[in-house]
Amino acid sequence: MVSALDLLKQKILAEGEVYEGNILKVDCFLNHQIDCVFLREIAKEFHRLFKDEGVNKVLTIEASGIAIGAMVAAEFGCPLVFAKKSKTSNIGTDVYVTQIASYTHNTTYNVMVSRRFLNEGDRVLIIDDFLAVGNALKGLINIVNLSGASLAGCGTVIEKGYQHGGDALREQGIKVESLAIVESMDHKTGKIVFRD
Amino acid sequence: MVSALDLLKQKILAEGEVYEGNILKVDCFLNHQIDCVFLREIAKEFHRLFKDEGVNKVLTIEASGIAIGAMVAAEFGCPLVFAKKSKTSNIGTDVYVTQIASYTHNTTYNVMVSRRFLNEGDRVLIIDDFLAVGNALKGLINIVNLSGASLAGCGTVIEKGYQHGGDALREQGIKVESLAIVESMDHKTGKIVFRD
Repeated sequence: MVSALDLLKQKILAEGEVYEGNILKVDCFLNHQIDCVFLREIAKEFHRLFKDEGVNKVLTIEASGIAIGAMVAAEFGCPLVFAKKSKTSNIGTDVYVTQIASYTHNTTYNVMVSRRFLNEGDRVLIIDDFLAVGNALKGLINIVNLSGASLAGCGTVIEKGYQHGGDALREQGIKVESLAIVESMDHKTGKIVFRD
Repeated sequence: MVSALDLLKQKILAEGEVYEGNILKVDCFLNHQIDCVFLREIAKEFHRLFKDEGVNKVLTIEASGIAIGAMVAAEFGCPLVFAKKSKTSNIGTDVYVTQIASYTHNTTYNVMVSRRFLNEGDRVLIIDDFLAVGNALKGLINIVNLSGASLAGCGTVIEKGYQHGGDALREQGIKVESLAIVESMDHKTGKIVFRD
């Protein structure tokens, strides 16, 4: 039987598209159309990696982190909290806020989490679909720190290893687990090489 | 044992907050912090309601529809597609687009779905967290129609019955199933009455 990790690599190779500007498009199974049966297997893998960390809350960021975050939270039997990207009239003023720079969109935006949903005593696993330069994770880690909660670690489905955001976080002693790490991509040939 | 439907009503009564301007805030379990174990039970209920409809794709809209949409898609063993609210540099130009008016935010925005993920032959179940005046559902139905796919129906977790968006769709012959229908709310007393 093919493991979820092998299947992930196979899907990246078969369905992923490489574009100029370091873009790996996997929107056919991860972040526009979502293969939810596969995602459930991926979620079990995150549970295996972090099950001894005392996780009682999963934190992600809208929108493309929500599906995998929800699956992971269901595996842990704990709530998912997703950070919101813009202030809506429904969110209230009592929020943790941090700024995140978007590498892809070359802009900066605020993300926020209600103070009611993250506090001292919480043990937080951050989950996201992608890890590249690491700006989204850094923002979410900042929110965890603002809340007084402790960080169990970070799990991402696909890491672009050559952008070194994950390595920088690991050097800080943070447990960062990515299920597939892309070491290099070539938009001319479409070739994708994984880190061992 | 308490059914998922009864538990949903209990949670709305115990954890929901009623605000002036027809706002029912259930962000502690449905759309900011998400009770994913509960959501999985809710998803099974949608599967029960639509299992004979030949569904091969679940369609929702970012951001708060994604978690429940993903759980429902996993129950059906089919993909989830979520409509995106703004054009990102990653989505490509080959999309179905429709406009949706936001009652809550008093604004209009475009939503889009890649043509690759919705086509003739698809049988689509639309899932969302809330149904009020029905603008989001109407937009998603329009996208289904643009794609040539057929509509199996719409499932929402909470419907505000007194805003009649669901009733208008039902009168058009569309199968609309909401797991809890709020018939009236009073922001002064906090009282919530469900439709029988």
